[in-house]
Amino acid sequence: MQAIKKYIEDNKQRFLDELFELLRFQSVSADPKYKAEVLKTADYVAQKLREAGADQVEICETAGYPIVYGEKIIDPALPTVLIYGHYDVQPPDPLELWHTPPFEPTVRDGKIYARGACDDKGQFYMHVKAFELMMQTGTLACNVKFMIEGEEEVGSANLGIFVRANQERLKADVVLISDTSMISMEHPSIETGLRGLAYLEVEVTGPNRDLHSGVYGGAVANPITMLCKMIASLHDEENHITIPEFYDKVAELSQDERDALNAAPYDEEEYKKDLDIAEVWGEQGYSTLERTGTRPTLEVNGIWGGYIGEGAKTVLPSKAYAKISMRLVPHQSSEEITAIFTRHFESIAPAGVTVQVRPHHGGEPVVTPTDSIAYRAAEKAIETAFGKQAIPTRGGGSIPIVALFEEVLGIKTVLLGFGLDSDALHSPNEKYDIFNYYKGIETLPLFHRYYAELSAQ
Amino acid sequence: MQAIKKYIEDNKQRFLDELFELLRFQSVSADPKYKAEVLKTADYVAQKLREAGADQVEICETAGYPIVYGEKIIDPALPTVLIYGHYDVQPPDPLELWHTPPFEPTVRDGKIYARGACDDKGQFYMHVKAFELMMQTGTLACNVKFMIEGEEEVGSANLGIFVRANQERLKADVVLISDTSMISMEHPSIETGLRGLAYLEVEVTGPNRDLHSGVYGGAVANPITMLCKMIASLHDEENHITIPEFYDKVAELSQDERDALNAAPYDEEEYKKDLDIAEVWGEQGYSTLERTGTRPTLEVNGIWGGYIGEGAKTVLPSKAYAKISMRLVPHQSSEEITAIFTRHFESIAPAGVTVQVRPHHGGEPVVTPTDSIAYRAAEKAIETAFGKQAIPTRGGGSIPIVALFEEVLGIKTVLLGFGLDSDALHSPNEKYDIFNYYKGIETLPLFHRYYAELSAQ
Repeated sequence: MQAIKKYIEDNKQRFLDELFELLRFQSVSADPKYKAEVLKTADYVAQKLREAGADQVEICETAGYPIVYGEKIIDPALPTVLIYGHYDVQPPDPLELWHTPPFEPTVRDGKIYARGACDDKGQFYMHVKAFELMMQTGTLACNVKFMIEGEEEVGSANLGIFVRANQERLKADVVLISDTSMISMEHPSIETGLRGLAYLEVEVTGPNRDLHSGVYGGAVANPITMLCKMIASLHDEENHITIPEFYDKVAELSQDERDALNAAPYDEEEYKKDLDIAEVWGEQGYSTLERTGTRPTLEVNGIWGGYIGEGAKTVLPSKAYAKISMRLVPHQSSEEITAIFTRHFESIAPAGVTVQVRPHHGGEPVVTPTDSIAYRAAEKAIETAFGKQAIPTRGGGSIPIVALFEEVLGIKTVLLGFGLDSDALHSPNEKYDIFNYYKGIETLPLFHRYYAELSAQ
Repeated sequence: MQAIKKYIEDNKQRFLDELFELLRFQSVSADPKYKAEVLKTADYVAQKLREAGADQVEICETAGYPIVYGEKIIDPALPTVLIYGHYDVQPPDPLELWHTPPFEPTVRDGKIYARGACDDKGQFYMHVKAFELMMQTGTLACNVKFMIEGEEEVGSANLGIFVRANQERLKADVVLISDTSMISMEHPSIETGLRGLAYLEVEVTGPNRDLHSGVYGGAVANPITMLCKMIASLHDEENHITIPEFYDKVAELSQDERDALNAAPYDEEEYKKDLDIAEVWGEQGYSTLERTGTRPTLEVNGIWGGYIGEGAKTVLPSKAYAKISMRLVPHQSSEEITAIFTRHFESIAPAGVTVQVRPHHGGEPVVTPTDSIAYRAAEKAIETAFGKQAIPTRGGGSIPIVALFEEVLGIKTVLLGFGLDSDALHSPNEKYDIFNYYKGIETLPLFHRYYAELSAQ
């Protein structure tokens, strides 16, 4: 423990400088215009893995962005930890809302502000530095494999193919991922579940051309109005999703599970204050923690149509669009929900317009076991580093890869995240606390040590 | 009549070249980036008025874009015709839908394709050429005053101020405007009414920042979803507008008026085929001609919020926006309806979001008399030029200035338009038939002659 703390202390500044360099790469996977930047980021990650002491480092090409692989096999008899992370980030817009440039990491009262600071550059890079630390201090207790991808923010379309094609190379006993958050540093927690995702784009077409709203208004179905009516109908008065069959496979939690979940510290007044909202919103009959952790949801992520420039244009547009995504819970399948949504959305198209639904990407929900050696090792690592018991929580986000690992490699995942919900992931002014960054680098070697110890018993 | 036809024949090509030059100016008043172009257009109009023989030509500055004035007073004893038009145009977007560049006029089977070809450059310029013709052939029968503005497409904000300040200079017996359409060249018609307009922009705010839809989705009101619910609620099942008091001042037409209106040629199958829609849409209990001509309407002209770029972003946005306009019929007041809408829209904001309504601009509805000397002169001019009786129709569009003229100058307007509903005003590939352009130049001098004759009786 002292050795760990000392190494971190001695390398504090360099650990930060290297992360900053990583954060300066504009690795936005959703927008082709950033392509060169994304590729440069992969090079940087590979280089840093080599410097940290990894062998077999390779930039593995895919149909999309490459996957960076590296490993250190010290003894085939020892357990192997497969570390997953992603070097791509969300688009930075709306740019005007950033207080400092998204790709120029800036520190304000102990926090690093930059796109990807927490999701996931700041978090996966902790593993690279923890690995370096274990190598340098001769404390590496397990074999380690790194798989850092560049398409997580766009659905990891090519990762599945890669994993299926590299099952031997990726053989491991557990997957370790830091791409989730804790309740707080005072209340360290481990996410034991993740929601799945079904993301679609809808296109509503009315007349075959934009029309003058004075000449045609009131006589021709307006695709914007029709899209609004369709979207409005997707939630009922009690904010339940109205799509037939949508809830069919959703398992209700037992009262005990609900109690355990709701036992996690949550201050609704604080929550509302942080977001500056008068009321929380959601499915009746469930708490906020249940709504985000255990219930499927439907959100409109974007909408556009007609004239959206400056000033006024009296147009009745030909088309209107929306990006809609659903978060899924255990037993719901991304493919099935995509089909159910598509069927329903096409069926509610009012006369006078036509509808097209295009699936974007998806991921399956997962629940990670809390009785595994790996989970107990994570608990123990947190207890040692934080001096507190870890609280099990259910995360609302999605990491499609987790379900894929179970299916293809047959191994479970431990979600050891050090972010905070307030880190503004996917938002302007994304941040990551420097404290959490160092705390993660301190905690991870403990996980490896305890995982080796518990596995040996 | 022969003299008119001959002069047009002799100057055919030049008339077209001058219009093309006018159409090449990118005089988009809604977007500041076109400012220099709009100002250049005003200079061109002034120059052409001078060349045509107008006196006192002046580019009158306003708080916004200038108004071009010019006149020819041949005899104070003769009636004076005040010609109004506008040299500004609608924004050209969506650009990708134009078959040829919007500001590079192109002729395809007898039609001029360009932004402003019909609305209103092609139409007001017919008056400049008709005036030149009357000057050159010594047939000018009335005094003429031109007032060509540059802010019609953004609500003529400064025209009212100008008119109030120049009542002496603008003194006239009738206002003549070509900024409307006919049923067809086979069914020449004159619009006897125009709808008013109330144009607003709404802003719905949820959380104080964009959020990760996985972490917060299902627990925080999504401003896009809430905006959709609000917009969806503005029309009921029968497509009546649900805003309290909205219809209070709307006068129902008598059965005779409705019959006369519906007597105008209208082929619903043709209408649907032209727009490529399966069904027409609108307020139950009214025909398409009634819906567009005599009923108030509410249209969403634009909507935007969240991530609208390429690919996917799992964001729960902080804000969503819409541009909404209402067309008004006689006795409805733009100001009053704006207030009624604002009050209602704010009142239906769901908990968890806040709403801001910003009025853009408006205009009052008008009905022009069909028993006036001016209207009879217009009828006679059309009869002579087309060999057919003009059909009185109700236009769905708005020309706020018409109500202003009545109020400030106390004079009525004649709407002698030569466009077609199929000219794609405000849309990509706006067009104007060359035939209509020449036909207008041929008809307008007849109006001046008959107006002088009938006034003398």
